[in-house]
Amino acid sequence: MPFKKEVKTRDRHVKNLAQIVGGAQSILYHKEDLLAYDCDGFTIHKHLPRAVVFPKTTQDVAAIVKYCSENKLPFLARGAGTGLSGGAIPLNDEVIISLVRMKRLLSVDLENRRAVVEPGFVNLKLTNSISDKGYYYAPDPSSQYCCTIGGNVAENAGGAHCLKYGVTTNHILGLEIVLPNGDIIEIGENGIPDSPGYDLLGLLTGSEGTLGIVTKITVRILKNPEAKQTVLAYFDKVSDGSQAVSDIISAGIVPAALEMMDKTAIKGVEAAAFPVGHPKDIDALLLIEVDGISAGIEEQINQILEVCKNRNVREVKVAQDEKERASWWANRKTGFGAMGAISPDYLVQDGVIPRSKLPEVLQKINKISEESGLRIANIFHAGDGNLHPLVLFDARIPGQTEMALKVGSACLQVCAEVGGTITGEHGVGIEKREEMRFVFTDEEIKAQTDIREVFNPDNLLNAGKLFPTPGRCAEIKNEMKAAATS
Amino acid sequence: MPFKKEVKTRDRHVKNLAQIVGGAQSILYHKEDLLAYDCDGFTIHKHLPRAVVFPKTTQDVAAIVKYCSENKLPFLARGAGTGLSGGAIPLNDEVIISLVRMKRLLSVDLENRRAVVEPGFVNLKLTNSISDKGYYYAPDPSSQYCCTIGGNVAENAGGAHCLKYGVTTNHILGLEIVLPNGDIIEIGENGIPDSPGYDLLGLLTGSEGTLGIVTKITVRILKNPEAKQTVLAYFDKVSDGSQAVSDIISAGIVPAALEMMDKTAIKGVEAAAFPVGHPKDIDALLLIEVDGISAGIEEQINQILEVCKNRNVREVKVAQDEKERASWWANRKTGFGAMGAISPDYLVQDGVIPRSKLPEVLQKINKISEESGLRIANIFHAGDGNLHPLVLFDARIPGQTEMALKVGSACLQVCAEVGGTITGEHGVGIEKREEMRFVFTDEEIKAQTDIREVFNPDNLLNAGKLFPTPGRCAEIKNEMKAAATS
Repeated sequence: MPFKKEVKTRDRHVKNLAQIVGGAQSILYHKEDLLAYDCDGFTIHKHLPRAVVFPKTTQDVAAIVKYCSENKLPFLARGAGTGLSGGAIPLNDEVIISLVRMKRLLSVDLENRRAVVEPGFVNLKLTNSISDKGYYYAPDPSSQYCCTIGGNVAENAGGAHCLKYGVTTNHILGLEIVLPNGDIIEIGENGIPDSPGYDLLGLLTGSEGTLGIVTKITVRILKNPEAKQTVLAYFDKVSDGSQAVSDIISAGIVPAALEMMDKTAIKGVEAAAFPVGHPKDIDALLLIEVDGISAGIEEQINQILEVCKNRNVREVKVAQDEKERASWWANRKTGFGAMGAISPDYLVQDGVIPRSKLPEVLQKINKISEESGLRIANIFHAGDGNLHPLVLFDARIPGQTEMALKVGSACLQVCAEVGGTITGEHGVGIEKREEMRFVFTDEEIKAQTDIREVFNPDNLLNAGKLFPTPGRCAEIKNEMKAAATS
Repeated sequence: MPFKKEVKTRDRHVKNLAQIVGGAQSILYHKEDLLAYDCDGFTIHKHLPRAVVFPKTTQDVAAIVKYCSENKLPFLARGAGTGLSGGAIPLNDEVIISLVRMKRLLSVDLENRRAVVEPGFVNLKLTNSISDKGYYYAPDPSSQYCCTIGGNVAENAGGAHCLKYGVTTNHILGLEIVLPNGDIIEIGENGIPDSPGYDLLGLLTGSEGTLGIVTKITVRILKNPEAKQTVLAYFDKVSDGSQAVSDIISAGIVPAALEMMDKTAIKGVEAAAFPVGHPKDIDALLLIEVDGISAGIEEQINQILEVCKNRNVREVKVAQDEKERASWWANRKTGFGAMGAISPDYLVQDGVIPRSKLPEVLQKINKISEESGLRIANIFHAGDGNLHPLVLFDARIPGQTEMALKVGSACLQVCAEVGGTITGEHGVGIEKREEMRFVFTDEEIKAQTDIREVFNPDNLLNAGKLFPTPGRCAEIKNEMKAAATS
């Protein structure tokens, strides 16, 4: 237990913050304690915060923010730290405001399909709290067993089932927010179907912690579908698999999830914690789930089986029971981590393309891999064209980290060139600041930084993220992206 | 044809604008021509514009905007003028930029489910252009046969089928926008599922023409459902009808549309252009449509019939063919206009409530009607709690217009008090500026006007709309709302 009974430091700001937040039990400031907060799921860049405070209430957060603002101390908010683009990494000796102690489920209103949670409430716990009554919360990032809904809002997190149900922003009905000046505002609490005024709810959702700190969240909850059914299809050729994806959508089916893995990815997941016996010599697999009213499911499954057969599927099977279904999903959802079984390091990328460009883009990514000498595994949400190239590398070999970043960037450039974009659900953070230029003109970036200026005029809140701004972070940017932007 | 061959006026700005936009064939400036532009679907306030210009290209729009901006001329954009809250009404001698000549369907990409249109393209024409290939555009405001998609974006328009499919913002993938300084930016063109940076797409959609002028729109198109089926249910008691709405949603059914009409509304539609023989002595009817895969439809319809029976339905019937279904919808969709058959004037309101509050709120609205002596008809999207009280009055009787505004405002106050809000799809415009205070604090309004300031620093674009700002429009506000805000 790293918390001390007494605050012993010469840093008067740390002392003052401790007092605001309720004493030494609610602040970390020793270097050894801060090490756990020097990065998030984007581990390539690390930097220590000045301190980490653990507020328990909105008023605590507002008071901390007010103190930081008045004393010009940089600060940022952090949930579970599972973000993949570096949004919660301190770049400027920030005071980190950890929201993990604000983790209550405040209310559930089944009749109006809403729940109110604090930002530190873990995603999966919401579904677990209401599943016995037949309801669930739809956004399901792979990290849902530990990531927080506050972090999901900041990053506008997605997940496998977002093809049918939409990403986080489609499920947020209201937010309480502490603005960078310490003001508390509530927005869109009644945001159905179109709340008056500007869509601040949409603006704040996915703003990556740069406009305000979310302290309370009203989410939409959904009734469990009456039935679901899951199909696994093995293909000898990637092109057949990607064509099947197109055919399924063209047939008018909107699966709840439509996931794809390529050969390298399959090798990884089969070597990791949840192998399910995928053949090792196939080139691609599709994991397809449909849900809805029982009566409609069988027809959709038959259509899907038909499509797969027409695209030369080697083998296709329907999950025989919930246990088999769950094993397929565990195998898929731990896919990124599974890369550890076949590579010392990996970098996850996150591009989006028009579905019709899937075969072309996978081929180009393959070429990038061949030319760079780094393997790339692909595990992704094929149904909505959201790619996740996993660049495998070994950080101990000089130059490989830089090469991996360069390869990741090149994959995003391919996505942008075919009319896609540079992130589907992981955010920009510090990882993809320069790549913003692939998709936005200077005027378009300025329209956005002008908005940041309104909320965050002193740029104390999570500075240096999201935009390719010049200034204090130039060194880091240069260090990280020299290769990628050359 | 009001257009002249030569521009004959002493107003040098009109002359200059004519030159920019291509001559006298593209500008109106005589008082008798301007009369058609002194209001929109909100007819209670009228004011003449300075001129109306008709650009044909984005470059035209940018040049007009630049000219207005440099010469400090107030300006605003206008589509078909069907808006119901006064968003297109000039308050400050604006130059109206009419977008009706920018009405091309630029491209259709069925494979990736997108279409690109100009802002003056009429909503229903999009569905008509792609229906033979099995596709459609979902947002369906009742005015869809004449309203433009540009106007739909400005107001974030809804429609009967938005219960299942979402409002306009859920179907917009990209926008080209002329900013108030004349810059042209493109946002979110690849917005699937979550584009990088701030959600400007969401911010601009529904901003009621106060942040920029939309000149190109990329929309999502959907595959026609395999089947649809429509039910009409007559109830002797409103409370049974509203309870049935709750029961249907609780059963896990998400109908494509779930509409309600009360006795006064039924009297109106049966006296107007598309009567279908609804009994005149019922208290409420529900019009319910489900769509999806054929196999699932029958089961849902049976569940709905069961729910209605349990709630003492007097009669319930399923549409026997497309002709009958279309007649029911025509009867519903012309409902607002039908009020003209039973009242010289009417004011449409547009509040949102949590579904569970439906019986309570309808009772309160009834009480407001009794106390004021003005009849209120209710035709509305019951499934998503989006009410449309239609306040019936006679403008020739002194004081009735003011009373109608007061009654409308009181209905919105009831909505706000039960945790709802003041607009579901019609926008705030000039009509509901003061009512913004029912749902937003000063800080929350300031966060929004600060954003307007970023885009629109000189407040030349559509000034005086959307927010209860003090200043030049105070007179109008006072005149209109004296009673309502007392």
